[in-house]
Amino acid sequence: MPAHPPRHWKEVVADKLSADNAKIPEQWRLSADVIAAAKNRRQIAGDFIEDLLDSETLHITSADGPDLLAAMANGSLTAVQVVTAYSKRAAYAHQLSNLLLEIGFDNALVRAKELDDYFKTNNKLIGPLHGLPVTLKDQFHIKGLGTSMGFVGWIDTFEGKKGTGNEKIFESQVVQELWSLGAIPIGKAPETNNNILGYTWNPYNQRLSSGGSSGGEGVMQALRGSAFGLGTDVGGSVSMPASFQGLFSLKPSSGRISFRGVANTGPGQQVMPTTVGIMGRSVAVLKLVFKSLLSTEPWLRDPNTLPTPWRMEKEYDAEREPGYKPAFGFMPHDGVVTPHPPISRALGIVKKALENSGYQLFDWVPPSNNESAEIHGPIARGDGCPDAYEAIQLSGEPIVPEIANMFPGGKLRQPMPLPEYEQVVVHMHDYRNRYNDYWMASAQRTGTGRPVEAVISPVTPYAAILPGKFKYSQYTSSLNVLDLPSVVIPVTFANKAVDKVGPDYTPLTEKDRLNMDLYDAEAHDGAPAAVQLFGRRWEEERLLSMAQLIAEAVERYTRTYGEEL
Amino acid sequence: MPAHPPRHWKEVVADKLSADNAKIPEQWRLSADVIAAAKNRRQIAGDFIEDLLDSETLHITSADGPDLLAAMANGSLTAVQVVTAYSKRAAYAHQLSNLLLEIGFDNALVRAKELDDYFKTNNKLIGPLHGLPVTLKDQFHIKGLGTSMGFVGWIDTFEGKKGTGNEKIFESQVVQELWSLGAIPIGKAPETNNNILGYTWNPYNQRLSSGGSSGGEGVMQALRGSAFGLGTDVGGSVSMPASFQGLFSLKPSSGRISFRGVANTGPGQQVMPTTVGIMGRSVAVLKLVFKSLLSTEPWLRDPNTLPTPWRMEKEYDAEREPGYKPAFGFMPHDGVVTPHPPISRALGIVKKALENSGYQLFDWVPPSNNESAEIHGPIARGDGCPDAYEAIQLSGEPIVPEIANMFPGGKLRQPMPLPEYEQVVVHMHDYRNRYNDYWMASAQRTGTGRPVEAVISPVTPYAAILPGKFKYSQYTSSLNVLDLPSVVIPVTFANKAVDKVGPDYTPLTEKDRLNMDLYDAEAHDGAPAAVQLFGRRWEEERLLSMAQLIAEAVERYTRTYGEEL
Repeated sequence: MPAHPPRHWKEVVADKLSADNAKIPEQWRLSADVIAAAKNRRQIAGDFIEDLLDSETLHITSADGPDLLAAMANGSLTAVQVVTAYSKRAAYAHQLSNLLLEIGFDNALVRAKELDDYFKTNNKLIGPLHGLPVTLKDQFHIKGLGTSMGFVGWIDTFEGKKGTGNEKIFESQVVQELWSLGAIPIGKAPETNNNILGYTWNPYNQRLSSGGSSGGEGVMQALRGSAFGLGTDVGGSVSMPASFQGLFSLKPSSGRISFRGVANTGPGQQVMPTTVGIMGRSVAVLKLVFKSLLSTEPWLRDPNTLPTPWRMEKEYDAEREPGYKPAFGFMPHDGVVTPHPPISRALGIVKKALENSGYQLFDWVPPSNNESAEIHGPIARGDGCPDAYEAIQLSGEPIVPEIANMFPGGKLRQPMPLPEYEQVVVHMHDYRNRYNDYWMASAQRTGTGRPVEAVISPVTPYAAILPGKFKYSQYTSSLNVLDLPSVVIPVTFANKAVDKVGPDYTPLTEKDRLNMDLYDAEAHDGAPAAVQLFGRRWEEERLLSMAQLIAEAVERYTRTYGEEL
Repeated sequence: MPAHPPRHWKEVVADKLSADNAKIPEQWRLSADVIAAAKNRRQIAGDFIEDLLDSETLHITSADGPDLLAAMANGSLTAVQVVTAYSKRAAYAHQLSNLLLEIGFDNALVRAKELDDYFKTNNKLIGPLHGLPVTLKDQFHIKGLGTSMGFVGWIDTFEGKKGTGNEKIFESQVVQELWSLGAIPIGKAPETNNNILGYTWNPYNQRLSSGGSSGGEGVMQALRGSAFGLGTDVGGSVSMPASFQGLFSLKPSSGRISFRGVANTGPGQQVMPTTVGIMGRSVAVLKLVFKSLLSTEPWLRDPNTLPTPWRMEKEYDAEREPGYKPAFGFMPHDGVVTPHPPISRALGIVKKALENSGYQLFDWVPPSNNESAEIHGPIARGDGCPDAYEAIQLSGEPIVPEIANMFPGGKLRQPMPLPEYEQVVVHMHDYRNRYNDYWMASAQRTGTGRPVEAVISPVTPYAAILPGKFKYSQYTSSLNVLDLPSVVIPVTFANKAVDKVGPDYTPLTEKDRLNMDLYDAEAHDGAPAAVQLFGRRWEEERLLSMAQLIAEAVERYTRTYGEEL
């Protein structure tokens, strides 16, 4: 018999929330009226939250990472000012949207003071991310903070275990790297739905979901509570929230950013590894963070990370490659599910923008996403997900609807037999090989003698989504099966006046028909609409160059022609 | 009912051997007397086979790869001469030791003529491996030849299947690369024991095994039937035959040499992938072949290959690093099993040779090989090996003793449950991480500020082995678990006059005692004794430099002091 009877999970949550609330300074607490007003609004990103801010906070949090660095480098801003402004805005965002599972404002401020001292003494920044506030999905361990991943049973433990000596001391390698580069973690954001903070709504349209699973981090970025964010991705969990919140994101290939010491509810699944992804407001900030992390030589500490530094020679530079015009693959749909009208319009804008800038796009009809679907599910969940199940059972909390299908009837599924699982692994490698062959063969079509540099496709069929209506994830999960890097590029916003299912729409498949039936121009109105660009495996340097090129082309185009096509 | 009753597997084998024999030109057939004499000898490597050769063949086959290239580049040898000489010696080696499962002399000669024409027309070599005859383990597909991997049921099929259209047409990617570089495959060598060619004995001491599983290729190299050889390794299958035959070998980390399109009886096991290894007579030829393969940019065609070219800046060059003296880890035993006396002597020679040259060695006591044993078996064979079983069942051939323990009672074992298997994967990553931490921490001991460059250890406890007495493979299989690259360096030969178990020997463990009981100075006399050098993951460039440094130090030392210690 246990010394103390176990407490009801709701009591544990109540205690945690009360302790966390105490970490928000009095002067940053929003009134009940403001919070009620936010609940009743469709959109809280942009004007609503910004109207609540003082001008210094607004000024600082409006700047992108590279500009903040420049301001700190010339002494016009201090790290304390930057961390204070972002902490305040993150606190506001949290009160409006339940975004902080862990609050680290106090330690962040201590570090900011250290950086300011360093700057005063040495007259230079401490590292390439000096003073940049960062938030992370609550799957990364940070000294001084707990890690629950939203599991009630993990509260006050180390990954579900008590008395390990690691609690609130252990740090994920990538977090150590961030500190060493000068970045300052200020808090951790939840998975999209969990029994501690509840559901994370889309701040552009609060009837819609923020997308999973790094949804909390997506909303934090959209509300600009930090300068950049880290999430994790094994099926689109960084790309989807980025696209639903109008952000840029990078999901790298496996093995470039260290995953060592990151909590993981599928740690034994290593044939299609979860990767660390970056979210932010520009390609520039993604590149800055990715390049900075590589500069710490993560492979020295994590033998699972490739010994591959940032390769400047892979970046695209028109002057270094005179006469060469990059070509792109263009996949407006995958032959299985047509994207909803706002996404098709976003794709059309990108296409026109590139063509207007003189770039050629080529049809992209690779090995089918139906095939990747047959691979992704068994690899990701063939084991029955016993680790996640165990984490839920610890506290007796209910299973949230988002993962209920993993545990039919609330029970653990039988795992696949190992030999069957291995057949899927064989299929995965065969699929990768054929996809690669298709890619290389594009050299015969481009006229440049080289294959396409990257491919433009939907991220999901949706400009965000009503909860429970997310039916198709193969645009992203195929890239996990293929282990290709991808960048999400926000393009426009759903607009009920123009985004209608046209009379010429013919379903590609029954799945497509059902999926298009879910579209409701009124419901999606105002939600961000994005595309993704994916590149060759382990060629993030090239991909980021191409993403920058496309983002600039889109900006030029929409400035002149608008976003209506 | 099949149209024809299935034939007895022995008939299938007899037909194959008779067809293969017809591929050996009359003038290269050895007399029954010679073959009988060979059978009765202890050693056939060296003088015995060389006395059978004409002087041109002896001259050409005595030269190492880089020297052959130089001779072809200055026109003093033609590719036809080189291929003819090696084909002849390979044919002799085969008749003495049953070394060719597939014979490709005819196609090789056609290609040699093409190369000579190319050279005449262009006055330069066609590529960095121009005209170098290569033999490969019969797991690589080569146009014009079958692939059986020693399975009778695979004869006249493509990996056990008939009518695929791939038979004798499909080529493994690395084979295509070899052809494109100018190398010329002349035949394929068997696994150490199989029901087609029988057992492959050690040519230095025919009572001993050639080691598994690329034993045939090891013997081919020892008898100098080709300029270099390719094998495959998932537990020491390249390193062990290299060490038993007195060869140099490179087992790279996974993902540097393409494995695409190589036959594989464990294709779904990708968490500890089988790698392609190289065997030859010098570090120089290993480097030449490895570097040449990378120069073809294999990652463009195989998405599972790292986009990492040969990195010259990783090579060690004393002039480029003045004042820096590389340090090495030294593991004379792993705390579990002491090597037999000839191997301990070889290790002692390397230690003295390096110390004499001013290099420091540091004790190496990393996470235990007992731990790697708990990981290697379940990962490699947790699925019960259904693919190998099926391949055997196809023909009804008996299971060879070397793999009998995989199929107790001749039956397929129950596979491990997937969640248990994944626990082993978690253990593997944890083991890799701790091993890496130990490695990095050596920087505090070396006095150079850097960790050790590489570690010297036994390859196996044995100077070759009597069949059935191979009891301990963790010195190599731990490197597969860790995915670290290794180079085998031959040092000396077992010498019954000096290699005795000393009175001061104390068993480290019961396993050690039993293993030392197997040592028989008389039985092992004359067998090669080697060590291995292993480096950091994916740092083959550095490791090969260090292997060269050690090989030179050993040569300098033994020239002066002999090999007796």
